[in-house]
Order: sequence, then structure tokens, then C-alpha cells
Amino acid sequence: MTKTIEFLFDVGSPTTFLAHRRLPAIVARTGAVVTYIPVLLGGIFKATGNAPPGLVAARGRWMQIDMARYAAREAITLAHNPDFPINTITMMRMLTGARGTADFAPLLEALFVGMWETPRNMGDPDILAATLTAAGLDPAVQLARAQDPEIKAALVKATEYAVSRGAFGAPTFFVGDEIFFGQDRLDWVEAAVTG
Amino acid sequence: MTKTIEFLFDVGSPTTFLAHRRLPAIVARTGAVVTYIPVLLGGIFKATGNAPPGLVAARGRWMQIDMARYAAREAITLAHNPDFPINTITMMRMLTGARGTADFAPLLEALFVGMWETPRNMGDPDILAATLTAAGLDPAVQLARAQDPEIKAALVKATEYAVSRGAFGAPTFFVGDEIFFGQDRLDWVEAAVTG
Repeated sequence: MTKTIEFLFDVGSPTTFLAHRRLPAIVARTGAVVTYIPVLLGGIFKATGNAPPGLVAARGRWMQIDMARYAAREAITLAHNPDFPINTITMMRMLTGARGTADFAPLLEALFVGMWETPRNMGDPDILAATLTAAGLDPAVQLARAQDPEIKAALVKATEYAVSRGAFGAPTFFVGDEIFFGQDRLDWVEAAVTG
Repeated sequence: MTKTIEFLFDVGSPTTFLAHRRLPAIVARTGAVVTYIPVLLGGIFKATGNAPPGLVAARGRWMQIDMARYAAREAITLAHNPDFPINTITMMRMLTGARGTADFAPLLEALFVGMWETPRNMGDPDILAATLTAAGLDPAVQLARAQDPEIKAALVKATEYAVSRGAFGAPTFFVGDEIFFGQDRLDWVEAAVTG
């Protein structure tokens, strides 16, 4: 029986990018299906009283070390984004609008790469538009989606769904009734979809 | 060459208890030596601006799930302590005073078991004394150490050492110049002392 991994993500989170890079190997090994669910990490923080972990400076420094270890082990290119933190709401609305269309995968890849692989200020509308164009996507189409009230509401609803199921950060994974938090729990996620 | 794992711990942290239970197997596999360094988690939080993770309710609920998973996988008995959070300063001073003596190992075991295996209110002086007596330790001797100004100062100094090396929570491990945070990073700690 094929199992599904719900992957609740915000492109603003570098650990979520690591999870995005690691998921294909898990899919290849297990045959699981991944459902990408765009959520707004800032909205989750606000609803739960959580805060970005890097606000505690020592924790932020540790996270850089820790992420670099995982990136090296998994052969993932991960770069610090000098413009971090970047407001991701427009990007996450674009992704919400692109769900179920052929745009979704190239859009997701372009946004994640722009955030964490060849990092630039993806909160800048011109840089965002140029990134989309370079990925073969029409910035006007993506932006129109991001401005659609129904799509905006759908992102809010997805964020509320995340919180209602116990999410307090990203990445969060659901396998059936089970919740997993953090790219460092992907071994547990893989076990949950195996056998 | 024998490698050393510095294990910075506070008995008030259940994830630190998990680490304590998991370390012997790592020692057996690698031949590493563990140096137990008592620190005051509250002092680390204060110095770094960090806070107990369970203050975010959803994060606290997740941690219960997550700790139970690790406990089950590692066959560790871990129980919720209904009196949590418990002020651990007297216990941590006792442990600081017992470093380098034959009391240290049985004291540590008795305190951790009292906190997380057969949980009781270890912040209560009578319960603490009874726990020590049951472990074959003289409560008067342990308490005298805990009230020694030099031992109090040594715990403060150990906590400052932890912060100076980048700690922001517990458990924290150092292997040479490398820092690791969390019982969930013990696989990385083990790799650091292997080969």
C-alpha cells in the first residue's frame, strides 16, 4: 500500500530546503508519495507563540554548524543567504496557486535554489521575477496567482491546518496520524512509510 | 588514541536523561571516555536568551511524542514527571561536589532515576534526602557539599564554560573543538569519536 508523506514547507527555512533535497532518495527507497503543502512559517510561529530559532544567537550559530554537517553528509549544496530573513509570503502564495499544475515543481525548485543554493534576495520583486523567467516561468502568471484572494485564503487555511495538527515550525511531516518535526527526523519519516 | 566526549548535563532535562542512557553503548562501541560536566540549564538559558522549549505548548507536545519514540527505540524507561519543571540547583551542586569521588556515579543514577524513571518531586528536600539514602548515599554529606561556596562557584564556572563554548541548552557535547546539541545528535557524536 502506497503511503503518503505530507511535507509542510516554507521556502524561507534552510532546514526545510535540506528536507526537500533529501526526500527524493526516500521516495526512491520506499515508493512513498510526497504531498507538498505550502504553509506560512511566520503564521505558524504567530499562532503557536514560537519564534525563529536563530533569534537566540548561540542557537543560530549551532544551526549553521549542524546544517553544514547534514549538507556535507548528504552532498547538498547549501549556502547562507545574506538577506535572511526574507519575507516569503509572495513566493508561498505563488506555490499555493501552482499546486496541481505543471508549474509547481520548476517553481519550487527555482525558489529553493534562489533562497539556499545560489542565494539572492528573493524578497525583491525584480529579483524574484528574474528568477522565475530564468526558470522558464512567466512572472506575470505567477504573480497574478499570488494576488488572487482565493489563493491567499488557501495559504492561510493550509497554515491553520498545520497548526491544528500540532505544527510549530518547519519542516513538519505527517504520515497518517503521526507528526515529525525537522529534517533531522527524516529517518523516522522513512521508517513510518516503510513496511 | 582515546577520544573524550564532554557531556554537559542538567538532571532537569529529559532529553539529557535519554543521552545519559544512550552513552554507555557508544562508549562500548568506540572506547571513548565520557567526562560528565554538571551545568545549570537555567543559567545557560539566562546567559543566552534561550528558554525551555516546552514553553511553546505545541513544541512541548511534540517533544513528548519525539522523546517517547527514542525511548522506545532505545529500550529506555522514560516517564513524565508530574512536578516538572523542578529546580535542580541543589542536585547539580551535589553532583559538582561529587565529581572525582566514588559518590558521583550512584548519585547521578539516583537523581536521574528520581527525575525521569520513577519520577517524584526531587525539588522537595525530604524526597531528595530519601532518594539519596535509598541509593546508599549520606544526605548530610551530599547537602554539605551543595552548600560549600567553592562548589557553588564551580557550578557557576562550569555553566559559564558551557556558554563560552557555544552551548544554549542541554544536552551539549564537545568532542575536541566540535559542538553537538541534543540527544538526537549522538550518532554524530559517535562518528566524531570513531576512527
